[in-house]
Amino acid sequence: MLDKLTIIKVGGKIVEEEKTLHQLLHDFSEVEGFKVLVHGGGRSATHMAAQLGIESQMVNGRRITDAETLKVVTMVYAGLVNKTIVAGLQAQDVDALGLTGADMNVICSEKRPVKDVDYGFVGDVKTVNADLLAALIHQGIVPVMAPITHDKKGNLLNTNADTIAGEVAKALAKHFDVTLMFCFEKKGVLMDEDDDNSVIPELRREEFRQFVTDGVIQGGMIPKLENAYQAIDAGVKEVIITQAADIHLRQGTRVH
Amino acid sequence: MLDKLTIIKVGGKIVEEEKTLHQLLHDFSEVEGFKVLVHGGGRSATHMAAQLGIESQMVNGRRITDAETLKVVTMVYAGLVNKTIVAGLQAQDVDALGLTGADMNVICSEKRPVKDVDYGFVGDVKTVNADLLAALIHQGIVPVMAPITHDKKGNLLNTNADTIAGEVAKALAKHFDVTLMFCFEKKGVLMDEDDDNSVIPELRREEFRQFVTDGVIQGGMIPKLENAYQAIDAGVKEVIITQAADIHLRQGTRVH
Repeated sequence: MLDKLTIIKVGGKIVEEEKTLHQLLHDFSEVEGFKVLVHGGGRSATHMAAQLGIESQMVNGRRITDAETLKVVTMVYAGLVNKTIVAGLQAQDVDALGLTGADMNVICSEKRPVKDVDYGFVGDVKTVNADLLAALIHQGIVPVMAPITHDKKGNLLNTNADTIAGEVAKALAKHFDVTLMFCFEKKGVLMDEDDDNSVIPELRREEFRQFVTDGVIQGGMIPKLENAYQAIDAGVKEVIITQAADIHLRQGTRVH
Repeated sequence: MLDKLTIIKVGGKIVEEEKTLHQLLHDFSEVEGFKVLVHGGGRSATHMAAQLGIESQMVNGRRITDAETLKVVTMVYAGLVNKTIVAGLQAQDVDALGLTGADMNVICSEKRPVKDVDYGFVGDVKTVNADLLAALIHQGIVPVMAPITHDKKGNLLNTNADTIAGEVAKALAKHFDVTLMFCFEKKGVLMDEDDDNSVIPELRREEFRQFVTDGVIQGGMIPKLENAYQAIDAGVKEVIITQAADIHLRQGTRVH
């Protein structure tokens, strides 16, 4: 019987405002058992880039990462956001360790090949050092992962935080009974996007397909759920889609 | 018989320029045995602060760290400089792990009390988690330490990199046979400050006192050497004062 592990991904908005960050740190400290936090920070990066006169270019919601932008995201994600969270968790007696993929070579990626779009210094995850992460977690350490990886050739690469959470969850599925939680602005996957209380509590694959066919689930939620089912195919026990305020309650949409 | 450990402190200038950084990463990878790197980054922080319109205030060579400056140094030291070094060392097959004092509560400090000067968010080291650091080092991990600590109450604090190197060396002296190397612009402590080749190869305490009396050693070198002897009093085997280009040769001034 494997130990339970909860991997929680929170977006930039939550961690960038003092009030919501404080609430998150408290709620995360209440999550029982072994846990990992993966964070974004895109809004702060965009804001910092603007202050430095660097234009943020986005294609399909993904950031184009030129050399100057890479410096900004490294500063903001791995420096300001990551260490603010780590210090905040330490104050709650959570033994947090901030990590990028470069640290102990935890996540190695490769620079995304140029096809239609040159995303610049963006890395697609190649390997996750699951044995090392599992050993740290079993020692009581709580990894706090910034969305920066490296290519083992000396280059840092910008990597989507959802992808990091998914890949880490898949890699750790042979060591733990993994629940992966994706936090966004809503309480879960909604039956009616205008009704915040219309959360679908459980979503099986057949239901998901039917909801897509019927147009109930659409837009950006479709790839999010496809990723969730990929994680489940790779051994992750369940994926919960929820809002940050509900992580300790484990409420939201259970995808399995 | 304790294992040997080399703790190397390098200043901002070395790690902030691509060419000298590349050389440092190579030289550091050649240092044999267990090792720790402690880095500064003040020049980049000053530059970044200026770009963001934040004035850098210095008193006696120490930075006054207001809330905005703390954000900048956290970004620059713990983000950009630290992760650039970590990725660079990983490319040299050095299993680097970037750390601030907040990570795993490695270094806990307290905000410096306001006396004549209010240094702001500056931390004086209170405790170093030597057992944890020693365990990591024995696993083959190379800590790369940024000059940021925390107070365990959720606050990050700016802490002088020389101080971090000294405190870590003292704390690890019961676990290892520690050599502490401070890198600066010269090849070592000079007999004649106008002659770069007048390095004093060995410096015992009595000689140091005599050189101070005779005016051979003066200015900022005096507190640097006083700190070195404090480290030796606390069990550090030797302190080497040298330039970054000589770390793998272990040349410079041996203080013991």
